[in-house]
Amino acid sequence: MPVPKPNLHPPFHIVRASHVEFQVKDLEVSRAFYCDTLGLQVTGESGEQISLRAMEERGHHSIVLRRASERAAGALGFKVFEHSDLDRLKDFFEAKGLPACFVERPYQHRTLRATDPQGIPLEFYAKMDRLPHIHQKYGLYRGAKLLRIDHFNCFSPNVDQAAAFYNEMGFRVTEYTEDEESGRLWAAWLHRKGGVHDIAFTNGAGPRLHHVAFWVATPLNIIDLLDLMSTTGYLANIERGPGRHGISNAFFLYVRDPDGNRVEIYSSDYQTVDADHEPIRWDLKDPQRQTLWGAPAPRSWFEEGTVFEGAPVREPELKAQPIVAP
Amino acid sequence: MPVPKPNLHPPFHIVRASHVEFQVKDLEVSRAFYCDTLGLQVTGESGEQISLRAMEERGHHSIVLRRASERAAGALGFKVFEHSDLDRLKDFFEAKGLPACFVERPYQHRTLRATDPQGIPLEFYAKMDRLPHIHQKYGLYRGAKLLRIDHFNCFSPNVDQAAAFYNEMGFRVTEYTEDEESGRLWAAWLHRKGGVHDIAFTNGAGPRLHHVAFWVATPLNIIDLLDLMSTTGYLANIERGPGRHGISNAFFLYVRDPDGNRVEIYSSDYQTVDADHEPIRWDLKDPQRQTLWGAPAPRSWFEEGTVFEGAPVREPELKAQPIVAP
Amino acid sequence: MPVPKPNLHPPFHIVRASHVEFQVKDLEVSRAFYCDTLGLQVTGESGEQISLRAMEERGHHSIVLRRASERAAGALGFKVFEHSDLDRLKDFFEAKGLPACFVERPYQHRTLRATDPQGIPLEFYAKMDRLPHIHQKYGLYRGAKLLRIDHFNCFSPNVDQAAAFYNEMGFRVTEYTEDEESGRLWAAWLHRKGGVHDIAFTNGAGPRLHHVAFWVATPLNIIDLLDLMSTTGYLANIERGPGRHGISNAFFLYVRDPDGNRVEIYSSDYQTVDADHEPIRWDLKDPQRQTLWGAPAPRSWFEEGTVFEGAPVREPELKAQPIVAP
Amino acid sequence: MPVPKPNLHPPFHIVRASHVEFQVKDLEVSRAFYCDTLGLQVTGESGEQISLRAMEERGHHSIVLRRASERAAGALGFKVFEHSDLDRLKDFFEAKGLPACFVERPYQHRTLRATDPQGIPLEFYAKMDRLPHIHQKYGLYRGAKLLRIDHFNCFSPNVDQAAAFYNEMGFRVTEYTEDEESGRLWAAWLHRKGGVHDIAFTNGAGPRLHHVAFWVATPLNIIDLLDLMSTTGYLANIERGPGRHGISNAFFLYVRDPDGNRVEIYSSDYQTVDADHEPIRWDLKDPQRQTLWGAPAPRSWFEEGTVFEGAPVREPELKAQPIVAP
Repeated sequence: MPVPKPNLHPPFHIVRASHVEFQVKDLEVSRAFYCDTLGLQVTGESGEQISLRAMEERGHHSIVLRRASERAAGALGFKVFEHSDLDRLKDFFEAKGLPACFVERPYQHRTLRATDPQGIPLEFYAKMDRLPHIHQKYGLYRGAKLLRIDHFNCFSPNVDQAAAFYNEMGFRVTEYTEDEESGRLWAAWLHRKGGVHDIAFTNGAGPRLHHVAFWVATPLNIIDLLDLMSTTGYLANIERGPGRHGISNAFFLYVRDPDGNRVEIYSSDYQTVDADHEPIRWDLKDPQRQTLWGAPAPRSWFEEGTVFEGAPVREPELKAQPIVAP
Repeated sequence: MPVPKPNLHPPFHIVRASHVEFQVKDLEVSRAFYCDTLGLQVTGESGEQISLRAMEERGHHSIVLRRASERAAGALGFKVFEHSDLDRLKDFFEAKGLPACFVERPYQHRTLRATDPQGIPLEFYAKMDRLPHIHQKYGLYRGAKLLRIDHFNCFSPNVDQAAAFYNEMGFRVTEYTEDEESGRLWAAWLHRKGGVHDIAFTNGAGPRLHHVAFWVATPLNIIDLLDLMSTTGYLANIERGPGRHGISNAFFLYVRDPDGNRVEIYSSDYQTVDADHEPIRWDLKDPQRQTLWGAPAPRSWFEEGTVFEGAPVREPELKAQPIVAP
Repeated sequence: MPVPKPNLHPPFHIVRASHVEFQVKDLEVSRAFYCDTLGLQVTGESGEQISLRAMEERGHHSIVLRRASERAAGALGFKVFEHSDLDRLKDFFEAKGLPACFVERPYQHRTLRATDPQGIPLEFYAKMDRLPHIHQKYGLYRGAKLLRIDHFNCFSPNVDQAAAFYNEMGFRVTEYTEDEESGRLWAAWLHRKGGVHDIAFTNGAGPRLHHVAFWVATPLNIIDLLDLMSTTGYLANIERGPGRHGISNAFFLYVRDPDGNRVEIYSSDYQTVDADHEPIRWDLKDPQRQTLWGAPAPRSWFEEGTVFEGAPVREPELKAQPIVAP
Repeated sequence: MPVPKPNLHPPFHIVRASHVEFQVKDLEVSRAFYCDTLGLQVTGESGEQISLRAMEERGHHSIVLRRASERAAGALGFKVFEHSDLDRLKDFFEAKGLPACFVERPYQHRTLRATDPQGIPLEFYAKMDRLPHIHQKYGLYRGAKLLRIDHFNCFSPNVDQAAAFYNEMGFRVTEYTEDEESGRLWAAWLHRKGGVHDIAFTNGAGPRLHHVAFWVATPLNIIDLLDLMSTTGYLANIERGPGRHGISNAFFLYVRDPDGNRVEIYSSDYQTVDADHEPIRWDLKDPQRQTLWGAPAPRSWFEEGTVFEGAPVREPELKAQPIVAP
C-alpha cells in the first residue's frame, strides 16, 4: 500500500496540534517537573488540575495535568481555523459512523469531541482563551525553556489505516517507514502546520500515546536540560538521547514525566509548507531513520506508551519491530 | 488607520516567499560570497546567471544572480498552492487595474508576473523544478549554513496602502509599528507560512528592497559567519548586528553582498499559524522594537536599499524616521 | 621600548587573579544583579558585606560587595602558590620602596597587602577558605552562569612601566598594542595561569579598574544574559558587545553593575602555558585589535572606570586614544 | 592506598601534554579523517609521515601520522619549560633505573626519550618549531574545528603505581576512582597545565593508549561533527557520546580514526591551577562518574586501546571492571 496522495482540499481546516491532558497521581510532583525543569508556565489551577503553556504560546494551555489514580492521556487537542470547521468536522466523523459531539471544556469556547477509527479520543476547537504574550519576558524562562507544543506521536495497530484517515482530514505525509516485505507502512509522519509533523503513527499495540513533543530554540537547551535532570533527581527520567533523528532531522531528547508519560524535546526540523513537498521514504531496516547518530533507543522506548482514557488497546497487525539490541 | 482585519478567506492561496533575482556585476565574486561564505548551493548556471538554493530547500532556486552592469533586484517570487491560484491571482490584479501576465521563467512551469500598487514586481508560480533533498548531506554545509529563505523586507512610500493590499491577498499582520502622532502605520510584518513574516514594509523612499532573509538553525551559525567574514576580507560587508529584534524576537545579522544588496541571517522567530493570532503593536518611539539588545542600526541600514528593476522610487508620505544616533 | 622579555624565574609564584572588592551603595540591589542576573552564589554575608563565588570556584570569594557611600574598588586579589611566596613578595615590594604589610582579611589565612608602582592596591594570599564544589549542582545555575573569575583590566598612566613591573613578578605578555609613533606600549595583556591574561593595562587616566572579567562556557550564555538584561530593567547596563576581540580572540560582553562597575563576560580565549609562547603585536591604528567584529566601543567604555580606594588618579603620559566615533 | 599528596616542588617543570605519533596504514585515508573531518592542519609531510596541528597551536605538531603496516602509538610527548629541565628529567629516570636518552626528532630541537615504569614510551622537549598563529584565520577552520591537544588517557596495569610516579614528576591528581573493596585506585586524572588532566590512567591490560583528546570551543562543535561523520561514511567510527562526564564535567565524544585509534573531542572542563585544589573522589560503583548523562559506554570503549610501539602489555592486578551492560 503506497503512501496516500495528499488531500489538498479537505472539507475543513485543521491548523495544528494544540494540547493534551495527562492524568497524574500527584499534582505537585508533576508541577515541579513541568515548570521548574521543563520550563512551562502555570496558566490556571484548581485543586484538581493545572493548566500549562510554553513560553511562545498565547493559547491558554498546551498541557493539562489532572489528578487521578491511574496514568492516562486524555484527548489529543487540535486547533481549527474557524468555528464552521467544527461543524464540518462533526459531519465528517458522523458520516463515517464515528463518535462526535460538542462538549464543554474550560477555557475553550466550543469543543468538538470525536474518536478516530483506531479509538484515539480527539478534541477540536477554534477559540481558546488567549493570554498576553510572554516570549520576551526572559526573566520567566526556566529549565529547558520549552517554546511551543510541536506534535503528538502514537502507537497504532494499523498505520496504513491511520495515515489514510488523517490524510483524508488534510494531514500530509512528510516522511514514512515502509516494511519492505509486506509493502505496508510501518510508521508515518503527517503535518498540518508546515513542519515535519503534527501527528505521527508507529506500528505497535495501540492506540497509545508514545509522546508529546515541545520545541526548543537550540540543541544547547537540551544539553542544559540534561545537566539539570542528571543532577536534580531526574536521571532515571532521561530515556533516550540526545541525538539527531534521520526522520525529521531534528535534534531530540526523550524524557519521562513523574508518571511515566514521555515528552520529547525537539529542535530544528524543517519547513514543509509546499503543496508538492515530497515525502521521504525510509526502509524499516535502516537504523539511521530513527537515529542519524546517537545511542540506539532502549527497549522501553519501543514498548511503553500511555493509554488513552477509555480506549482499549489492540495488538498490531504487523509483527513486532526488530529492536536493535541497545 | 488601524491594522487591517485579517482576510481569512482570500480568493487564492499564496504559500510563502520563494525567491528573488539580483543583478550583479561579477558572477564569480558573488558566487564566492553566496556559496563559500553564506553556504548556498549552486543548482544551475550559464555564463549569464547562477541559481542557488539553501540546504533545506527542494525548489530549484531561492536566489538567482544575473550578470548586469547595474545593481537591481528582480521580481519578488512567491509560491502558490496550485496552478488555479495563478489564474485567480491574475483576475485579482487585473480587477484592480494592475499589470499581470504569464511569462516564461527557467525552472518554473508557469509564472504569473504582476506589479503591486507601489510598483514592486512580483512573480507567482505553483511548480518549480524540485531537486533531491540535501539537508542531511552535512559534508556540503559551508559558512553560515543557510537553511531556507525566510522573508523579504521592502521600503514602502505608503505602508498603510501596502499592508492593506497584501492583507487583501491573505497575508496577515503579526507585528506593526505605529506612528502615534499621525495614527498611521510606520512598518508592518505580514506572513503566509506561519512565521512572523513573508514580507514586511517600512516607511521610506520606495519601492526598494531592504533585504532578503535566510533562516539558520542557531545563533552560533551567525557567530561563525561573523568570525569568517571578519577575517576573510568581508569585514566591511557586516552592516548591523548581531542582536535580537524586539519585533519578531529573532536573533539577526545584516550583511551586504559584493554589490551592496542586503541579506539578513535570521533565527528563532515564532509560530503564527493561529487564525486568531493577535498582532503586536510597537510604538515608533520605542527603540527596543528594532533592537531588543544590540548596537543601534547604522545610518546606511535606514537609508540604503536595492531598487527594483524598472520601478521608479517615490518619497514616502510620512516624514523621515527619527534615526537614533548610533 | 620593546615588550619586556619574560622573566621565567621570578622569585615567587603567583598563581592567578583571585578576587576584588567593590564598594556599593545598596547591597540588595547589587545582590540582585550579581546573583539573579550574572549567576554568582552567596558564600557569606553580614549587614555590611556579601561574599560571592562563581559556579566553578572553590575558594570562598571572587567578588566581595561592601556597603559604602561612594563607588570604589578595593585591592586586586591574587592567589600565590604557597605561604613562603608571601614573604618573598613582601621582600620584593620593600626592596623597591613600595608599601607591603600583612593584614587580616576574613576567610583568608594570611594576606599580604601591597601597592604597585602606579598605586594599585594589591593583596596576595596562599590560603583562602575552601568550599565544597558545586559545578555539577546544575539546579543552582542562574542567569549568565558565570564559571570563574578570569582577569582584571586597568587604566594605567604608564603602560610601559606597569608591564615591566608585572613582568618582573613573572607575568608574561601575550598580546600588546604599540603606539607606532612613540614606539611605546599602549596596552598589554599579561598572564600567570595560562590564558591570555590575569591582568591587562591600557593607557589612560589611572590607576583605575576598567573591568573584572568572568568566564562562561559558551557564547550562548552571553546571548541568554543579553535577553535577560534587556527585558528585566538592565538594558542601560549593557555597555558594549556582544563581539569578538581581536586581542585574546574571546567572545565578550561588557555590562555595568548597579554602581557602574564594569564586568566583562568572557569566553573562549586560548592557552598560553608554553614558556616560549610568542606575544602578538597589534598596531594602535588597527580597529580589529579591540573588535574583530561587533559594534565599536562607546565613549564611556574608553573613558569610565572605577577608582581604587585611596589611590589618586594621574593623567597618562601618552596622548588620549583616538576614539573611533561609534 | 590513598591518593598521593601532590609533589609541589618537583625537580623539573613539565608544562603540558604535547603530541603523539600514530602508525597508520594509509596516510591519505588518515589525512581525510584528521583534516577534513576533525579539522587539523597539515604542517609537514613526506611520503612517510604527515604532521598536524590544531587551530590554536603554535608548536609544529600535536599529531604525527607515520605510515606503517601495523597500528601502534609512538611516545607520548610532553613539553617542558626549558632545556635544563630535560637534563634533570634524564637524571630522574636514570636514578630509577629507567631508560632515558636524547634522540633526534624532526622539528624538535632536543628530545629526551624515556620509558615510564609501566613501559609507556615518553618524549620530552623544550623547543619545537613554532609556526605563525592561525587561530583567527577562520577561513581555514573545518569539521570539528579542533583547537588544541588536551590530554592522554592510558590503560594501566597498576594505577596506584602510575599515579605515584607521575605525581612524583609534579602531576597533580584532580579526580580519581577508588575501588572501595580493595582501597586501591581504579583510575586517576593528573594535570600539569591547569585543567583536569594532561594524562589519566585507568585500570586495564596495559600499557595501552586509550585515547588522545582535543579541545573544542563548544558542545555545538561536537554536534556538528556528529552530523558530519554520520553522513559522510564515518558512522561506525562514532564510538561513544555525546555526553557529559561526571569526572571532569566535560562535554565529550569519542571517535575512532580509520586505524581504530580513539580520539576524544572534549570541551568545558574546569580550572585546577590552585596548589590546594582538592581532588574529587568517585566510587567505582557510581555510574555517573563516567557518564553524568548519556548512553553507557559500549564494551569496545572499556576493552580496546592502542598498544605502544615496543611496549608489552600486561594484565591488570585488579579484577576487570564490572561493565554495565549498555
